[in-house]
Amino acid sequence: MTDQARYDTAIDAALDRLHEEGRYRVFHDIERRRGNFPHATWRRPDGSERPITVWCGNDYLGMGQHPVVLDAMHDAVDAAGAGSGGTRNISGTTVYHKELEAEIADLHHKEAALVFTSAYIANDATLSTLPKLLPGLVILSDELNHASMIEGIRRNGGAKRIFRHNDVAHLRQLLEELPRETPKLIAFESVYSMDGDFGPIDAICDLAEEFGALTYIDEVHAVGMYGPRGGGVTERDRNVHRIDIVNGTLAKAYGVMGGYIATSAKLCDAIRSYAPGFIFTTSLPPSVAAAAAASVRHLKTDQSLRDQHQTVARILKMRLKGLGMPIIDHGSHIVPVIVGNPIHTKKISDRLLEDHGIYVQPINFPTVPRGTERLRFTPSPVHDPRMIDALVRAMDGLWSHCALNRAELSA
Amino acid sequence: MTDQARYDTAIDAALDRLHEEGRYRVFHDIERRRGNFPHATWRRPDGSERPITVWCGNDYLGMGQHPVVLDAMHDAVDAAGAGSGGTRNISGTTVYHKELEAEIADLHHKEAALVFTSAYIANDATLSTLPKLLPGLVILSDELNHASMIEGIRRNGGAKRIFRHNDVAHLRQLLEELPRETPKLIAFESVYSMDGDFGPIDAICDLAEEFGALTYIDEVHAVGMYGPRGGGVTERDRNVHRIDIVNGTLAKAYGVMGGYIATSAKLCDAIRSYAPGFIFTTSLPPSVAAAAAASVRHLKTDQSLRDQHQTVARILKMRLKGLGMPIIDHGSHIVPVIVGNPIHTKKISDRLLEDHGIYVQPINFPTVPRGTERLRFTPSPVHDPRMIDALVRAMDGLWSHCALNRAELSA
Repeated sequence: MTDQARYDTAIDAALDRLHEEGRYRVFHDIERRRGNFPHATWRRPDGSERPITVWCGNDYLGMGQHPVVLDAMHDAVDAAGAGSGGTRNISGTTVYHKELEAEIADLHHKEAALVFTSAYIANDATLSTLPKLLPGLVILSDELNHASMIEGIRRNGGAKRIFRHNDVAHLRQLLEELPRETPKLIAFESVYSMDGDFGPIDAICDLAEEFGALTYIDEVHAVGMYGPRGGGVTERDRNVHRIDIVNGTLAKAYGVMGGYIATSAKLCDAIRSYAPGFIFTTSLPPSVAAAAAASVRHLKTDQSLRDQHQTVARILKMRLKGLGMPIIDHGSHIVPVIVGNPIHTKKISDRLLEDHGIYVQPINFPTVPRGTERLRFTPSPVHDPRMIDALVRAMDGLWSHCALNRAELSA
Repeated sequence: MTDQARYDTAIDAALDRLHEEGRYRVFHDIERRRGNFPHATWRRPDGSERPITVWCGNDYLGMGQHPVVLDAMHDAVDAAGAGSGGTRNISGTTVYHKELEAEIADLHHKEAALVFTSAYIANDATLSTLPKLLPGLVILSDELNHASMIEGIRRNGGAKRIFRHNDVAHLRQLLEELPRETPKLIAFESVYSMDGDFGPIDAICDLAEEFGALTYIDEVHAVGMYGPRGGGVTERDRNVHRIDIVNGTLAKAYGVMGGYIATSAKLCDAIRSYAPGFIFTTSLPPSVAAAAAASVRHLKTDQSLRDQHQTVARILKMRLKGLGMPIIDHGSHIVPVIVGNPIHTKKISDRLLEDHGIYVQPINFPTVPRGTERLRFTPSPVHDPRMIDALVRAMDGLWSHCALNRAELSA
């Protein structure tokens, strides 16, 4: 076999594994139209088009088409051009970045914030840099933490302990096994995106105080959507002062792009100075920073959008439950319907798209455990009652057609 | 000592190390004005402002203010809104992303391209995923490769060999030590950004063929600027067909944001499917993708910008050499002036900024080796003769004032 053939064979094998397990991903080519969210156009691989309703986006509040966001974006393009022109250290720190960081620090009642090109990078860079700053640090991590946190924790081979999901007793046990003087950090999420369940924030903070650990919370699926100013679950529950580092995104409820941490001025300064993933990359375009700042600012006051969001989510869950669909409901805005098999999940998703113009991407392993493959709907204030009707009717028909299980109606 | 005090002390110590070594970074707050590049406004920490000329940006060709780029950006904001609304897999693949990837694949004469949120992530994600696809892979890496490549290679603890910078004999020796059937990848750059020197591309490709290794080249400081269509040094030297994976950025010569790899369709498919840094992050905003595609497309034909860029770089180097400044000149567009001491470098940079309105950021360890601290100028087509005059005069005065060494005039 030639060298090239050996490389090709290995790559083919990696791709074949995905096909065999029914979890090969096909990216659907989508074009949302501003002003018409959640409507969009799906372009098939053959070039033909179909109008669709997007039911799986992360632009949870429709801020991606909000005039205050778009105006800020246009204005900054006109004023400052396209890119930032450099890394944060080398000519790429602009007034737009500073204003965005001030807006975020205020949002979370922290001294400072640091903006990254994504929340993925914010998690990865921060969690992989903390062990350099705090020699001997042990990170205690919820087993269902997002891939970006896992990557960050693993990156430099630092010490870690994994606690069972939301299992405070297990976390206590792991903390008890560590010497008091060992630096510790507990890393967890406020809303876990795949089940839509909440982390036990106060119970974890109690343990952190008892054992002298720092706390790190990922509020990516909560910022903008929870709390009277959109400060996330820690604002709603008034416990953000118990959290040392808040991680959030500007790409979901805020509808733009980028991610951040909010924490003490000292820690921001240290992460800024030591994290390669922050230092050696071009900063966000001024227009993206300006749009994100406008969105954060707007959602500090627009409680009606948050209320509508929760209302639409409640209605959708009630309707799906009424049909006996096996949904997971932890009271958040995320609506997962368990199918439990990657082939069926893909088939239902395909039929929804082709026959009903309803776009919901199948969620497979490794994003969720095998056997819990699902459709995950993300209702938003821009989804109206007719769209909910259409979705519920389509799901009802497909569920019967595929002879899938329904939960007890009383569930 | 309380727990909090122990954490604070550790973080203080990390920050103190930077101050002691004179390499604590202060981010200057800059506002470029579209249409007036390279002019900008520097906002001092006290809020006062000073007009400046940016001499250290990475918007090498001024594309960040080019009308074709800004028009594309505005149009996409109007059409599709602010953010993409999802990861590439979950509603975040748009026609803009597909068009950008097609434009890039064509640029490098490859079957396919994959766009990431930055070239940092493109390097990190690709180089950390390849060992998963090619079991037993050994990556042979130039010792001066960019931080993002180093992070990617180290991330999963895969096997690696580091060869001395541009030392083909050393690379051969390392290849000879590996069994023939071991999968191998040689990772290097076409232009090293800190010295501005070129990698020995053909010599490395010869070795790759001889030893059956794959080749990975980082063209971040070359794409847009070299080659008749901006395809980088591998286009100029007509050896891109010998390279398996090309990495590039949309944030420097193209003036926007984002990064990519261009390679075989099969390998793009595998990286797309297996790299967490690609899978679990929101895709670029449609407007950013559209602006980048417009920039790539434009620079496929606008040779005059590339010519002007090289002309301005040649003039600046000639003028600085004429004054006996210790510049490094490998014939690229990057103009490093070695000061050799972090304190002096910072002092000269501060004086240039305060007294002359010339902004050039000091480059310190760990970005460059200790003892080679430098000012690195990035001339561009938007730097005119008057600006060059002002820079050269200011440097001449400061060099004398600080009694710094000059090279022999014949150097």
